[in-house]
Amino acid sequence: MAGKKRIEDYGIIIGELPKGRLNKISDVKGVRVGHYTIDTEENKTGVTVILPTEGNIYANKFVAASFVLNGYGKTAGLVQIDELGTLESIIALTNTLNVGVVHDAVVEYTIEKCRRENINIASFNPIVAECNDSYLNNIQNRAVKKEHVFKAIEDAVEDFEEGDVGAGKGMSCHDLKGGIGSASRIVSLDGRDYTVGVLVLSNHGFMKDLTISGKNIGRDLAEKLENHNTVDKGSIISVIATDIPLTSRQLRRAIKRAAVGLARVGSHLGHGSGDIMIGFSTANIIKHDEPQDIISIRAMNEDKMDMVFRAVAECEEEAILNSMITANKVTGYQGHTREALKDYILEYF
Amino acid sequence: MAGKKRIEDYGIIIGELPKGRLNKISDVKGVRVGHYTIDTEENKTGVTVILPTEGNIYANKFVAASFVLNGYGKTAGLVQIDELGTLESIIALTNTLNVGVVHDAVVEYTIEKCRRENINIASFNPIVAECNDSYLNNIQNRAVKKEHVFKAIEDAVEDFEEGDVGAGKGMSCHDLKGGIGSASRIVSLDGRDYTVGVLVLSNHGFMKDLTISGKNIGRDLAEKLENHNTVDKGSIISVIATDIPLTSRQLRRAIKRAAVGLARVGSHLGHGSGDIMIGFSTANIIKHDEPQDIISIRAMNEDKMDMVFRAVAECEEEAILNSMITANKVTGYQGHTREALKDYILEYF
Amino acid sequence: MAGKKRIEDYGIIIGELPKGRLNKISDVKGVRVGHYTIDTEENKTGVTVILPTEGNIYANKFVAASFVLNGYGKTAGLVQIDELGTLESIIALTNTLNVGVVHDAVVEYTIEKCRRENINIASFNPIVAECNDSYLNNIQNRAVKKEHVFKAIEDAVEDFEEGDVGAGKGMSCHDLKGGIGSASRIVSLDGRDYTVGVLVLSNHGFMKDLTISGKNIGRDLAEKLENHNTVDKGSIISVIATDIPLTSRQLRRAIKRAAVGLARVGSHLGHGSGDIMIGFSTANIIKHDEPQDIISIRAMNEDKMDMVFRAVAECEEEAILNSMITANKVTGYQGHTREALKDYILEYF
Amino acid sequence: MAGKKRIEDYGIIIGELPKGRLNKISDVKGVRVGHYTIDTEENKTGVTVILPTEGNIYANKFVAASFVLNGYGKTAGLVQIDELGTLESIIALTNTLNVGVVHDAVVEYTIEKCRRENINIASFNPIVAECNDSYLNNIQNRAVKKEHVFKAIEDAVEDFEEGDVGAGKGMSCHDLKGGIGSASRIVSLDGRDYTVGVLVLSNHGFMKDLTISGKNIGRDLAEKLENHNTVDKGSIISVIATDIPLTSRQLRRAIKRAAVGLARVGSHLGHGSGDIMIGFSTANIIKHDEPQDIISIRAMNEDKMDMVFRAVAECEEEAILNSMITANKVTGYQGHTREALKDYILEYF
Repeated sequence: MAGKKRIEDYGIIIGELPKGRLNKISDVKGVRVGHYTIDTEENKTGVTVILPTEGNIYANKFVAASFVLNGYGKTAGLVQIDELGTLESIIALTNTLNVGVVHDAVVEYTIEKCRRENINIASFNPIVAECNDSYLNNIQNRAVKKEHVFKAIEDAVEDFEEGDVGAGKGMSCHDLKGGIGSASRIVSLDGRDYTVGVLVLSNHGFMKDLTISGKNIGRDLAEKLENHNTVDKGSIISVIATDIPLTSRQLRRAIKRAAVGLARVGSHLGHGSGDIMIGFSTANIIKHDEPQDIISIRAMNEDKMDMVFRAVAECEEEAILNSMITANKVTGYQGHTREALKDYILEYF
Repeated sequence: MAGKKRIEDYGIIIGELPKGRLNKISDVKGVRVGHYTIDTEENKTGVTVILPTEGNIYANKFVAASFVLNGYGKTAGLVQIDELGTLESIIALTNTLNVGVVHDAVVEYTIEKCRRENINIASFNPIVAECNDSYLNNIQNRAVKKEHVFKAIEDAVEDFEEGDVGAGKGMSCHDLKGGIGSASRIVSLDGRDYTVGVLVLSNHGFMKDLTISGKNIGRDLAEKLENHNTVDKGSIISVIATDIPLTSRQLRRAIKRAAVGLARVGSHLGHGSGDIMIGFSTANIIKHDEPQDIISIRAMNEDKMDMVFRAVAECEEEAILNSMITANKVTGYQGHTREALKDYILEYF
Repeated sequence: MAGKKRIEDYGIIIGELPKGRLNKISDVKGVRVGHYTIDTEENKTGVTVILPTEGNIYANKFVAASFVLNGYGKTAGLVQIDELGTLESIIALTNTLNVGVVHDAVVEYTIEKCRRENINIASFNPIVAECNDSYLNNIQNRAVKKEHVFKAIEDAVEDFEEGDVGAGKGMSCHDLKGGIGSASRIVSLDGRDYTVGVLVLSNHGFMKDLTISGKNIGRDLAEKLENHNTVDKGSIISVIATDIPLTSRQLRRAIKRAAVGLARVGSHLGHGSGDIMIGFSTANIIKHDEPQDIISIRAMNEDKMDMVFRAVAECEEEAILNSMITANKVTGYQGHTREALKDYILEYF
Repeated sequence: MAGKKRIEDYGIIIGELPKGRLNKISDVKGVRVGHYTIDTEENKTGVTVILPTEGNIYANKFVAASFVLNGYGKTAGLVQIDELGTLESIIALTNTLNVGVVHDAVVEYTIEKCRRENINIASFNPIVAECNDSYLNNIQNRAVKKEHVFKAIEDAVEDFEEGDVGAGKGMSCHDLKGGIGSASRIVSLDGRDYTVGVLVLSNHGFMKDLTISGKNIGRDLAEKLENHNTVDKGSIISVIATDIPLTSRQLRRAIKRAAVGLARVGSHLGHGSGDIMIGFSTANIIKHDEPQDIISIRAMNEDKMDMVFRAVAECEEEAILNSMITANKVTGYQGHTREALKDYILEYF
């Protein structure tokens, strides 16, 4: 898409596994991402939706899992994912105080979609995750409206934009501009290629800790730049998709490894940060109206999980870096500004 | 309050501990409950709010905990309670598809309240729990609006109504009419009286399993009555309040014992049921702007917890029975009807 | 087996589902149970082993899960069960301070068995659960020796004894004599019969709370009998076996429902009690040396889980009652005595 | 102590916080560590004990917490720590198949100690953690005997040795020699200095991933050296001690941040690795025989936790590096050899 330079375009290679075609979460077949961005003087915010399938996710659910690395967050929908191990909703990302409105929009969208397809829906578990963009955005406005969510869904594509777009418009990462980033890796199992993809909404970390490919550039940057925080008051939401057949338990193990990517970019998993991972696998369909009592599913040989773990860790690290390097400098609410990594990286690489 | 007969008024004594003045959750000082009930031909639903304090719960938080006994539910806000062990919001109960709207209303109410009291609020964790009332209520309408939530808050009182009111308007329990019920118990510690109170939103169970004070009356009832389900598709939300000083870990242990009360009324914790407990203790104030690095809190001697556990179990059992016995027969959406327990209990007790 | 009267022999019917042939955990094909009982003046204790298969459980693992309802206990082995969802060991039950010795014995037995079958074993996760029998047993002696464990394994049979045998020799339940009890239920899925079986080591509860088939007989008993405790200082270990195909997540949901059976007999899940459930399903074999990267497993349609939940709850309730009704009166260490339920039950049923 | 060069002696500075006097876990007042090392042709193994206090930890318990990052491990004792949030035992580390024997030794030691001090002990929760040293050690021998544990306890000192000693004798880390390592940091709260200390038993990681202070040296090393594995079949046990007043919930949050240190040295939290953290705080004494029902404890202002998180992450990273850099090259069972990091590090730093 657009032609923004990504971290690999600076010659920075994260990890060792081969990448997918777009090096985005949408390399997992069926996955698309849509944004709606709000960019006024007072409001820098928006909504980003991850559509897990071209079909109806309520009728044909995917195996899913969540992992809460640090729970200073307001994500809705994890209780049921943890219990039933399935995803029956699109995933929406937004700012902290907009969870309710976006939640209601996802409900409305899903009722409408099911009505058209003649699927009965009385209970439904929407997934809405959030980060707090109140440094750049007047968050109390709850500027995201239902129509914005519908528009983001409508606009979802495979080759989506990264950086200061959608829910990422007002987010900060390591005290620079953060937002939406993505990456993917290819894993070979029984001689066939499978894909792991990650999308992050990054909004965490101290500047001084920023580390790219093992090199701490944050300490130096922090001496140059002034407007950085002294507390890690952000969050990161990581959505992990794969077409590898995994049970919910296996998927939970896999997405936990996003912590590795996070730590490598310099996070120490700060108190104020809601570090939440949500994963789904498209490999097994769990039908909403399954007639059989006993079903057959495919899963991974547990002893081969290391490949998947490595893929998640690499994707997470690169997705965070992509969220930063593709973002533009933004000046928002009350004149607060976040610098863009792309304006400084050439001094270090 | 109205003068509805409660389970004790039928001479049915649950447990052995002494009861609080009202035998309601509001026997815990500061706790009030408000309802807004929607009662149209198509919609039998509403919202119930539990106000944990007369003060500002965001500025002066309470120790809190949650326990998910069965997570087929959509409650929002538990991630942060589990991480930080504090409650910073009022608790709202409603129907499944109204979580988003009610969530947004709680955000708006809290922003407004904090603005008036000059408290800065950029991040906030609303607690919204739900049960599915779609048997009696056209749930897709999402009939509860923001104003209804504000009204429920405004109307909150100590001596609140039970039964088919507020969020309980459309709920079913053991295939009879359920809804809102409450109970309390007194526990003596170091020579002082403390209170444990429970409020339930009951919407679970099969008729044949209904057991009152050890006596299964459900099997007999199920032969008489026709319109009962064959699957346990309900849920129960239990809110537990106390003024006993407990850490979050201790509180979690305590509220888990609501499972005992549930089982005694005949639940077998069905698959489709979201059995969720949320507890808070008013004994320690966790200030939003705490200046000290190290604080002092009071907690319980762990070896004396049995008293608290027994109190929770007894309250839960009686609160469920009160939710049923105070409810009126309701005929709602598509002519579906739930009978009232009070119309049948005299045949058995 | 011995011909001890069980709870059904008193005309007391627990639940509604059909029972297996022996009404024991060993109705699940392949499961056997062995005891070694120590019965000296000072020591009333022993060891009980559950052999999950006639094959080698290390080479051909079963899907497994654990649930800790109350963790005041010392069970070893749950960390790995929770992570990998598999059972690779026999399960041994003993007294609290004998966990180490029994653990070492299970390691030795398994190394030896694998050596004979030419299976390489460098890592191994033994499952050893315990209750505290120190009221009747001089527990500091750690009277159970490695040879006792080997003997119990050797003696394992399908139609095993219940009551004051093996690990159950010194246990107390509701302040009467407890110990080993079992029960089973049949569940029909896709037209085929499957079995759920439970074995408990019961050592929990207050006398006054004892409830049989909904009838509280404990309060009356407590007035008659003197030597009962005032604190619930016991535990219960529940082992749940089934041939229903369940994932580890599903199995965890199922075994959690043992809480229902526990509550119905009168437990309020006391503080001092280690209430621990361990479950396994024989339906899928997880090979230690699986050559494929992707495997196929069978699982249950989640919407049909209620049948399994009910079976677990019924089995648990009946297994506890069987552990009590089959036990003889025992006088042990320091002259402490536990009365036998069978000597009093006819006054109530 | 010996005068082995540690990572800081190579001019490699991990993190930014000030270090304690010894830069070891024993900088937390009262903590001592003892080793017993077995060094025969066939057996390279041993036991390491962490004594949390000079007093009797059973009589005067500490607040404690555990976190299982990856549960492919056999650590005993976590169930009760998670439930009650207290430590009542010394902590022992050994090889995987020796858990039973060491468990029994800890029980015997504690019974004996309590007998001498006239403390009644009928129930007791020993903490025994393990890693698998079977590459260098004939693990099936279970070479560690009870007497070795008693000797390690007797020999415990503040300025203990690191590297290939005690339980660390046969361990491997990033395919080089690993074992015991430690570090500490100072945190200032309300104007007073507090200490965080970590001790690791390191036995995890791939050579190619080894990263020191952000510099990946593993890829280069892996080309030079031959005998490295292709699977991450190790584990790491991290024991975290502090005198900062923390509740069990807060402590659990803190020790979780050891994951950051792990990731920075290059782990991707491999499947076969049991990554387990156990933490305790010496700041509050939880008496075994507490007469009061309500007690007072000190805790941290949650908003200041970031300092503690950073301290844990830094300690973990440095402790792992110390475990490697202080270890000697070891050739053990079947001629297997692990090279020493100290023999190669000067090529890179």
